[in-house]
Amino acid sequence: MKYKLALIGCGTVGQGLLEILTDKGEAMKEAYGFEVKVVAVADKLKGTIMSPSGLNIRKILTVLAAGKPLSAYDPGKKPLAMDPLEVIGACGADMIAELTYTNIKTGEPATSYIKKALSLGIHVATSNKGPAALHYHELRALAEKHGAFFRIEGTVMSGTPVFTLAENGFPGNEAREIKGILNGTTNFILSKMEMDGMDYPEALALAQKLGYAEADPTADVEGFDALAKLVILSNVILGGRVKTSQVKREGITGITKAMVDEAKQAGFRYKLIAETKRVGSKVTAAVGPQKLPLSDPLAGVMGAQNALTFDLDLLGKVTIQGPGAGKLQTGAAILQDLLAMHRDLR
Amino acid sequence: MKYKLALIGCGTVGQGLLEILTDKGEAMKEAYGFEVKVVAVADKLKGTIMSPSGLNIRKILTVLAAGKPLSAYDPGKKPLAMDPLEVIGACGADMIAELTYTNIKTGEPATSYIKKALSLGIHVATSNKGPAALHYHELRALAEKHGAFFRIEGTVMSGTPVFTLAENGFPGNEAREIKGILNGTTNFILSKMEMDGMDYPEALALAQKLGYAEADPTADVEGFDALAKLVILSNVILGGRVKTSQVKREGITGITKAMVDEAKQAGFRYKLIAETKRVGSKVTAAVGPQKLPLSDPLAGVMGAQNALTFDLDLLGKVTIQGPGAGKLQTGAAILQDLLAMHRDLR
Repeated sequence: MKYKLALIGCGTVGQGLLEILTDKGEAMKEAYGFEVKVVAVADKLKGTIMSPSGLNIRKILTVLAAGKPLSAYDPGKKPLAMDPLEVIGACGADMIAELTYTNIKTGEPATSYIKKALSLGIHVATSNKGPAALHYHELRALAEKHGAFFRIEGTVMSGTPVFTLAENGFPGNEAREIKGILNGTTNFILSKMEMDGMDYPEALALAQKLGYAEADPTADVEGFDALAKLVILSNVILGGRVKTSQVKREGITGITKAMVDEAKQAGFRYKLIAETKRVGSKVTAAVGPQKLPLSDPLAGVMGAQNALTFDLDLLGKVTIQGPGAGKLQTGAAILQDLLAMHRDLR
Repeated sequence: MKYKLALIGCGTVGQGLLEILTDKGEAMKEAYGFEVKVVAVADKLKGTIMSPSGLNIRKILTVLAAGKPLSAYDPGKKPLAMDPLEVIGACGADMIAELTYTNIKTGEPATSYIKKALSLGIHVATSNKGPAALHYHELRALAEKHGAFFRIEGTVMSGTPVFTLAENGFPGNEAREIKGILNGTTNFILSKMEMDGMDYPEALALAQKLGYAEADPTADVEGFDALAKLVILSNVILGGRVKTSQVKREGITGITKAMVDEAKQAGFRYKLIAETKRVGSKVTAAVGPQKLPLSDPLAGVMGAQNALTFDLDLLGKVTIQGPGAGKLQTGAAILQDLLAMHRDLR
């Protein structure tokens, strides 16, 4: 089947997705009978291009790699002055990849984009934590009402399969608890403090230099990023109704080198752990530093990696470890979602 | 949809599956619209029972828990004197769970059972390493010819999703290398040698006492069990044509406590590693002890756990860790396979 795809937002992840579609298009067609043409790309900063017959992906990538606006795709044409919201209604897409920036407080403008698409019966895949953390159940209900899919693999651990794994790998199992390392930046900092003897400011500076941490590192080091992902896991996998404001949160800024060393001497390791569990019908969640024994599968997760342990009634503990961010890694998450839609649409 | 299921072989795994079907039947029906009635159980040692209208699973479990032959299920009836091969043809099942003992040299009698079922267009799920390690491509071709599914999730890492993960979680990715700890017994022994200072005979004796190792531990400690699983991974996930005789194999019997301690001093840890990679069109595989740096995700896998690292072109390294054996764990693998069939049949 051949789908019409629109990208809303075309930063790093969007370009990663486009690269994958170019490089893997033939293989996807052969393996799954899955074909895609990109009918629109709309980005608040870079502009909008649309073509019902399909855009040339390589050409889009060349334009963006040169740092040009999307209007440079077809210099003969007058640039389209359209808001992404209009594009969603006008482009005729079957599937939308919503890849705009995350706003964890309001979820906007992504939530409005997603609602518009779902209301039109257009399937949505997003890697945006905002809408999923704030409005998951509402968006799922809207999707079901209009016969559309709403998928979010890229919101947690980028393309490392989390929701796909829970959906396909654990049938019959009930998840009692999910516990993980969901923020690569803080894990990198804690790893450097223990392994290379850095103190916190030094490790943070290195993380910033390497591009793991932002100039304002608050979202990472104070646990907000991990919290958003944890709320998504709580609500999607454990079926909770957890709100971001209800989650206990502590970051790693209070962890000193002395504490890390003392823990190490005693055979423990500090990790920023995001943890959610169901007790009866209630799901609770918390983010904070924990001293793990080295025998815990999460203790061995070093550097910018992420990992998640599912505690399941039939299987016991199953842990998945992999990348938590990255251009191709998050692009691959969107592809996972699109292919899952294709599987269910065939 | 309601399927007719026959169990060929009803030892530990079969009873695990029956327990799961009893405990989770209602939940499976609600979540996936998946219903099963067991129309036959055939076991070389325990006998055969059949009923086209469906057997009472709880009653079967009670009979087996009491150590009685299956004929005790209906004492008024004359015991059925049927070979499993006949049962497959006579029971009218849509799906067969092939759960007989593993013979890694001949793959029999399991391979004959599976061939019979597939030839009749009956879907087969198996946790038996023999047929999958020796005849995977042949059995897949036979399945396709007759419009049947042949699934093998339980052959590697019990119910920890391996094939399901590769199938659903890594679309668009090419796996370049797969590397893992596939034998829990040897991992338990090596863990005890390092952590509790035991020498090899002492750790082996403990593994035997705890039921991890057989009286004759050869299949585990000489790497034959890991080798069979590795061949399956090579052929199923990397698309190789690897034969068991072509795999380099070394066990852990040559590893001394002194070697373990020396490695530990240097920041390394011995693991029995099964490794397969594709170079060009050729897939090669080897099993042997390796000294891993502690930063390797496989180094942190302790005790009887299993783990597998996939090296993927888009995602990079993704590791899954979980149980490698167990009654409910392997029963859950069969359920995964049955539900995957159901998904593709809907």
